Amino acid sequence: MSKGITIIPGGITAPRGFQAAGVAAGIKSDKRDMALLVTDTPAVIAGVFTTNRVQAAPVQLCRERLAARQACAIIVNSGNANTCTGADGMRAARRMTQLTADLLQLEEHTVFVCSTGTIGRPLPMDKIEAGIRLAVTSLSPTGGADAATAIMTTDTRPKQVAAEVEIDGKLVTLGGMAKGSGMIHPNMATLLVFLTTDAAVEAQALQDCLAAAVDRSFNRISVDGDRSTNDTALFLANGAAQNAPLDRRHPRWKAFCAAVNALTGELARQIVKDGEGATKLVTVTVRSAPGKRSAEKVARAVANSLLVKTSWFGADPNWGRVICAVGYAGVPVNPDRIDIAYNGQFAVRGGQPVGLAPEILHAIIAKPEFGIEIDLHLGRSTYSMTTCDCSDAYVHINASYMT
Amino acid sequence: MSKGITIIPGGITAPRGFQAAGVAAGIKSDKRDMALLVTDTPAVIAGVFTTNRVQAAPVQLCRERLAARQACAIIVNSGNANTCTGADGMRAARRMTQLTADLLQLEEHTVFVCSTGTIGRPLPMDKIEAGIRLAVTSLSPTGGADAATAIMTTDTRPKQVAAEVEIDGKLVTLGGMAKGSGMIHPNMATLLVFLTTDAAVEAQALQDCLAAAVDRSFNRISVDGDRSTNDTALFLANGAAQNAPLDRRHPRWKAFCAAVNALTGELARQIVKDGEGATKLVTVTVRSAPGKRSAEKVARAVANSLLVKTSWFGADPNWGRVICAVGYAGVPVNPDRIDIAYNGQFAVRGGQPVGLAPEILHAIIAKPEFGIEIDLHLGRSTYSMTTCDCSDAYVHINASYMT
Repeated sequence: MSKGITIIPGGITAPRGFQAAGVAAGIKSDKRDMALLVTDTPAVIAGVFTTNRVQAAPVQLCRERLAARQACAIIVNSGNANTCTGADGMRAARRMTQLTADLLQLEEHTVFVCSTGTIGRPLPMDKIEAGIRLAVTSLSPTGGADAATAIMTTDTRPKQVAAEVEIDGKLVTLGGMAKGSGMIHPNMATLLVFLTTDAAVEAQALQDCLAAAVDRSFNRISVDGDRSTNDTALFLANGAAQNAPLDRRHPRWKAFCAAVNALTGELARQIVKDGEGATKLVTVTVRSAPGKRSAEKVARAVANSLLVKTSWFGADPNWGRVICAVGYAGVPVNPDRIDIAYNGQFAVRGGQPVGLAPEILHAIIAKPEFGIEIDLHLGRSTYSMTTCDCSDAYVHINASYMT
Repeated sequence: MSKGITIIPGGITAPRGFQAAGVAAGIKSDKRDMALLVTDTPAVIAGVFTTNRVQAAPVQLCRERLAARQACAIIVNSGNANTCTGADGMRAARRMTQLTADLLQLEEHTVFVCSTGTIGRPLPMDKIEAGIRLAVTSLSPTGGADAATAIMTTDTRPKQVAAEVEIDGKLVTLGGMAKGSGMIHPNMATLLVFLTTDAAVEAQALQDCLAAAVDRSFNRISVDGDRSTNDTALFLANGAAQNAPLDRRHPRWKAFCAAVNALTGELARQIVKDGEGATKLVTVTVRSAPGKRSAEKVARAVANSLLVKTSWFGADPNWGRVICAVGYAGVPVNPDRIDIAYNGQFAVRGGQPVGLAPEILHAIIAKPEFGIEIDLHLGRSTYSMTTCDCSDAYVHINASYMT
């Protein structure tokens, strides 16, 4: 890790002045299903939300409250998305923040709320309210891991990360947790991402930093190409490290942003590795495209192709399906210039196979992680996406996950 | 069937003056893998091709020859796509038409060629040439069924259809066959479609009729969202019925086009029903969209959503995934106006569930064929797509189909 960034154990409660809890409120039988994150002193908050036109009630509420840039707590439930629930859904979301604020003696507008799970069912408010009470009494400066478990849906493992970086002679800590496994697609999928830091950060700078980090991480991963109604990334900076507030002019601004990118990059990787039914992590890199948008379109077409993803599951280096996806990406490529390499080994040059021994390609594709590089020889733009294979387990998980 | 169109048994050799053969040339172990279609007298030809930027050699050759609008034969192989094969691939495609022309004493430019199968491998020309010789000696006025079998790749059944319609007091016959099962996506997927008629049809009218029929049928089906490098639809009209040549001004033009639409619609349905691993045929209809393009985008988003398709396989009426796909289709929908119905039974009105009994929805989703109607209440445009569920068998088929 460059620039003096050290990855450390822990998650959202690694930075000073944060407490969290993860409890079982009975929304999802007996598993943890509610998480609470609280900062001891008011924090600056940044947020990025789904681009889906259908947005969950809690997303609408968070967008509204984000304007004031101040946050003291985030209450989260899994098992129910509180989406397509109309005015009752919005009342329920507000009630969650109101009760949390009352119990913690906070102002309601400084409490944020997220929900993830099934769409179109009313929240079981009795359970939710009991869950909030339990979460408040369970708050702990080491509660990050419990919280990371409580936000899971089809995830098979919790996802958290923490890091340290030195700023103004002070050790600043950053932490994060995320959930997401299906509906993973660029532009914020069924993702919930929560980041914390004890650094003092100017509000607009924090927002810019988060937006850029999300674009470089969560917007470049794909499990199944679906984008959800609830995606939310929230970042709280409470200033407990007592550094001079960070902004673009601060000499350590880039180091701080690099630490944030390290966190979001790691969480994004963890999400794809835990993609529903995924057995392999694959990086698709498009080079020498005529523009960034073209590079992105080609990378997305390959990373989202079901035929390409199933061939990886079958450990079949089917570059024919890769070049086919390049061809339908909507970019005026020249087929006779396309090179395709696997972990740097060329399979195709100038649009034709180079006769690389099948054993070599098969050995690469059999690895749990590998990279595919596609060179269009048309310009200077590059774009990378991280994706996974599509296995029969993906179908089983999504055929059985109930409405 | 309206307008005096009668569906009859048979396929491409149902119309007068056509012969066909389907033989085993050894490209795909011991299965039939080469088809030949010949018209006794020169036919007018129309063609529609893949929009993929990477195009197989035979596609390039067909495009070139289509300009003259005249055809006497089509030679087809399965098991090898002759794509990404460079100058050798183009030479091989030409050689296929040259040998066919020589053996049948035709002019080479009136012979068309199609290939389907694996990308990036040289055609086994010894086998191909022996196959052409065998096909020529096997030609028969009842060879349509054999030809329909020979063009299959992962298809589990041959697809053919024929119909009769009266024009100028003469009985005109139309026939068709198609292959396609994976890589099925709007804008001509791994589809080969061959249509024949003994009607006399003016060349440009035939082209317009075919393009419109393809747009209404094959461009509105989806199995997995991948678009192939080899898609081709060819339509031969040999005039053996001796009607006054059909064009837009002919009083029976609409009846003829309706018959063509009946054929392509039926072949498209057969393709989706035989979609790789498909167990259900689902029609997605979007109504009251602000424009046709918007209606189409929403229908495609739903019909291609992997989460939606796997829920159908699980017999789960997960309308939450449907409305989620509507939301990310890139159309400015108003979530509070969206209605969703299954076979006419409303599950959602105004963006919220109406409390329809789950048993009713489950019973609909359990059927082998059902429809989902999405009303956006934003305008007057409608668009329909036919799609299928995504099962674990899809993954198995595509993980094992080798490079």
